[in-house]
Amino acid sequence: MPVIQVNLIRGYSSGVKQRLCRRLTDATRGVLDAAPEAITVFLHEVEMDGYARGGRARAPAIASEETPEERVRAFLTALEARDLDAAERQISDDFVMVFPGSPEMTRLSDLIAWAGDRYRFVRKTFQTFDTCDHEDHSVVICHGHLSGEWPDGTPFEAIRFIDRFEVRDNRLARQDVWNDLALARS
Amino acid sequence: MPVIQVNLIRGYSSGVKQRLCRRLTDATRGVLDAAPEAITVFLHEVEMDGYARGGRARAPAIASEETPEERVRAFLTALEARDLDAAERQISDDFVMVFPGSPEMTRLSDLIAWAGDRYRFVRKTFQTFDTCDHEDHSVVICHGHLSGEWPDGTPFEAIRFIDRFEVRDNRLARQDVWNDLALARS
Amino acid sequence: MPVIQVNLIRGYSSGVKQRLCRRLTDATRGVLDAAPEAITVFLHEVEMDGYARGGRARAPAIASEETPEERVRAFLTALEARDLDAAERQISDDFVMVFPGSPEMTRLSDLIAWAGDRYRFVRKTFQTFDTCDHEDHSVVICHGHLSGEWPDGTPFEAIRFIDRFEVRDNRLARQDVWNDLALARS
Amino acid sequence: MPVIQVNLIRGYSSGVKQRLCRRLTDATRGVLDAAPEAITVFLHEVEMDGYARGGRARAPAIASEETPEERVRAFLTALEARDLDAAERQISDDFVMVFPGSPEMTRLSDLIAWAGDRYRFVRKTFQTFDTCDHEDHSVVICHGHLSGEWPDGTPFEAIRFIDRFEVRDNRLARQDVWNDLALARS
Amino acid sequence: MPVIQVNLIRGYSSGVKQRLCRRLTDATRGVLDAAPEAITVFLHEVEMDGYARGGRARAPAIASEETPEERVRAFLTALEARDLDAAERQISDDFVMVFPGSPEMTRLSDLIAWAGDRYRFVRKTFQTFDTCDHEDHSVVICHGHLSGEWPDGTPFEAIRFIDRFEVRDNRLARQDVWNDLALARS
Amino acid sequence: MPVIQVNLIRGYSSGVKQRLCRRLTDATRGVLDAAPEAITVFLHEVEMDGYARGGRARAPAIASEETPEERVRAFLTALEARDLDAAERQISDDFVMVFPGSPEMTRLSDLIAWAGDRYRFVRKTFQTFDTCDHEDHSVVICHGHLSGEWPDGTPFEAIRFIDRFEVRDNRLARQDVWNDLALARS
Repeated sequence: MPVIQVNLIRGYSSGVKQRLCRRLTDATRGVLDAAPEAITVFLHEVEMDGYARGGRARAPAIASEETPEERVRAFLTALEARDLDAAERQISDDFVMVFPGSPEMTRLSDLIAWAGDRYRFVRKTFQTFDTCDHEDHSVVICHGHLSGEWPDGTPFEAIRFIDRFEVRDNRLARQDVWNDLALARS
Repeated sequence: MPVIQVNLIRGYSSGVKQRLCRRLTDATRGVLDAAPEAITVFLHEVEMDGYARGGRARAPAIASEETPEERVRAFLTALEARDLDAAERQISDDFVMVFPGSPEMTRLSDLIAWAGDRYRFVRKTFQTFDTCDHEDHSVVICHGHLSGEWPDGTPFEAIRFIDRFEVRDNRLARQDVWNDLALARS
Repeated sequence: MPVIQVNLIRGYSSGVKQRLCRRLTDATRGVLDAAPEAITVFLHEVEMDGYARGGRARAPAIASEETPEERVRAFLTALEARDLDAAERQISDDFVMVFPGSPEMTRLSDLIAWAGDRYRFVRKTFQTFDTCDHEDHSVVICHGHLSGEWPDGTPFEAIRFIDRFEVRDNRLARQDVWNDLALARS
Repeated sequence: MPVIQVNLIRGYSSGVKQRLCRRLTDATRGVLDAAPEAITVFLHEVEMDGYARGGRARAPAIASEETPEERVRAFLTALEARDLDAAERQISDDFVMVFPGSPEMTRLSDLIAWAGDRYRFVRKTFQTFDTCDHEDHSVVICHGHLSGEWPDGTPFEAIRFIDRFEVRDNRLARQDVWNDLALARS
Repeated sequence: MPVIQVNLIRGYSSGVKQRLCRRLTDATRGVLDAAPEAITVFLHEVEMDGYARGGRARAPAIASEETPEERVRAFLTALEARDLDAAERQISDDFVMVFPGSPEMTRLSDLIAWAGDRYRFVRKTFQTFDTCDHEDHSVVICHGHLSGEWPDGTPFEAIRFIDRFEVRDNRLARQDVWNDLALARS
Repeated sequence: MPVIQVNLIRGYSSGVKQRLCRRLTDATRGVLDAAPEAITVFLHEVEMDGYARGGRARAPAIASEETPEERVRAFLTALEARDLDAAERQISDDFVMVFPGSPEMTRLSDLIAWAGDRYRFVRKTFQTFDTCDHEDHSVVICHGHLSGEWPDGTPFEAIRFIDRFEVRDNRLARQDVWNDLALARS
């Protein structure tokens, strides 16, 4: 039943607009328990010369074409392929990552070194991605199963994992990882 | 800069209305990269007799006063206090939970039995709660540290954990747990 | 899908507001072929001091609590009961009526006299009422069947009729009647 | 005084949009007794990518370019010209028509046969058309005068008639006719 | 034709709301050349709990019940009555005034002393008040005629004057005066 | 905090639209004491076929591209340059002007003659322009300093002046002038 109308300056891409419609629908449903099909969203785009705050025209806020989830996927894909340059492009200058039993690591090369003692390689099969919007950052959480090979070449699979990422200013700022590797190894 | 106006039927509590304002702000910010203070939300409440869909007046959707996060907190608190009745009230009939190394469990008593071999008791210190709205359910994820005692009475602390809950129709439907207990024990 | 929002001054009754919701829904459906349940109407009532046209507050337009259809029903009921005073209250000063084979009549007493040669009494069974809004008047049309007695006391029934009324300024201004009485008599 | 704002997806023709403006004005006036010039209607068209119901973009409802009145006029014109094919195109599969003294007829050829005994030909001069929107159909009523020739070639004119049509899904579904032909003949 | 809708938090007085309606009407007319009666203003008041900027509820801006014009009138009336305390209450700490031939004066007592050489007393008859809204202050200008007595007791009248006031933060911050006293005296 | 939305027919120039945004912001700030940057204005332009008053489409009101202030500046500039034709084009047929000690003058040539006894020429340096919108006219007031030469060729400068103009239907209808020339001469 709720109808949501958004006034915004013309200039966002079709993808960004549909994403906004979806997120507003989900946010409303999360609070009001309304059926999704009872929630209607309209975006009213005004021309830049038909808008003023404080009596002055303004440019629209910049909207990233890539969602936080897409950034996380790109990062994990690059990492699996050991394409450190591509992975590097998705992370912020003060990126921090923590794995089970690891110290806080800040460089991807440190991660590669640290992981070398633990497995030859690892593949992630994703079950779900959850994105949570906070006031000044988003959190992306994915979970699923790991497969790969132990350092001695023995294969493993179906080991549970969950990764939690904080995304700020369109860059990954933090990664926390949990999994059952220790349990599987023991 | 975006202004969001919501038409809804009068009757929601102040808490629900403010929650809706916040969630819509966060959802918009998550897509548009706008500064939070540039996002304005107005809820326009109409009387029930000033609304019709299909030519007929409708009652407002029911809004739970408790947020998904509050339900998760209530459940975890009850479980720590071993108040199984209170914990039971928060979960759905087809509730499923999975812990590291456990099978899929459906009854809280099974969990208690299963955990008995692993620790005498455990306390959770929460670092963050993330809530993610999906089309027909919400996901609540909390992470932080565990402290407690091993079966032999030795204390442990600062062990990383993350819990992921699916909340449907105002009841917890699924809990997935990851932690570093195996790593600590080994 | 269309959402219709009406700004109007607070002060209309619940009945009037729901009637407005229904009429706007029907009017929209009549043009857009939208399913009724896809049409949402919101009435936003503003206080008298929160409204101005030409810089000045205005009083709301007066809304009759009686619909044109209700006026027509009241008139026809009064006429059947030969309560000419009650029937008189529903018609305008320049009311005109035309029956099959009659001249234009302006007074209810003339109708009674004219009808005396044609039947002892007549009852109307209504099948439908149709109300049509024009720019400055409404038209109410009802059709169904007549039963009654011919002047010689013989009964008749199931004779088709249709009445067309013009309603202006909350009074019936014109009545045109068609029926199969001549056919039945012949 | 009332201001009516409609949010709808861009894509309707100019004619449909102006028709919607007019019908909403008439519907409002019919309920609120407001002067026509005090009723303002604005259609706000949003792009398809700026709209979502249930979080998904939707296509606009289809709007017939022909009004119910135009369909009725086209049908009656075709019938007068004995262009049965054209008349056929305006009626639904389960079309039913009733004339004074006739049975329920479902085929236009039956009507032609039935009318053959009653007049050589007939022309309709229309005085008014009234369109009434119901929740799932429209009713079009026209009245005026008939002229033509009796079976023996004698001309007649100025005989009162009224036709009531039900229009569903852009097809005429029912026609009921009343007139004073029996009275004139007797 | 333009319709202006204002969303604001509930809590302003009736006088303030009607004033806002009038000023918005005048401002629109000043730009668009629309006839006043073609400009409609609606104030939609939302409850404090139905509003958020940056995700947080806000208190409404404070609105002075006294208009800038009323403050100027109160100041000039107090000055004519030599009620310096009342006049003082309307002016800011850094108030400056300039009269024909005077230096910049900052204290009302200086004005009284300076005027003593020029007239025994003076009365203002106002012809018009003009109020002009700037981004961060208002300007009030009044003009009309002076009457009074010269120092020697001779009366004068119908001498043209104009006063220009700057009003900031609800206090008079500057007064500039022009008149034909010098011309009349010469 | 207040958000102002204007529905208007598409067709105004960018300059007119931004001017409208600014005037509405100033008018709101003048009443509500809100900080300018807390006032947001959106102009929603509808197509001519998506608008109706009284059920009929209307053409947009004509908006002058020149502001009242620009007209006054053009008039005063032309007058200083003794370009009487250009000055004439800005004034209405019933234009009236009053200078200190002058009668009501209606023709610019009268002004030139009258001024001839008072100064050889005069230049205006403007300090501020104030524009005030009234219901059916605007008032423009400018003040600053005069410089020029007395009839005997002696120069003068820094003499205070203020001009008040009434602008109706895009023409200057009245000019009232005050200054300290008499004081300076005496």
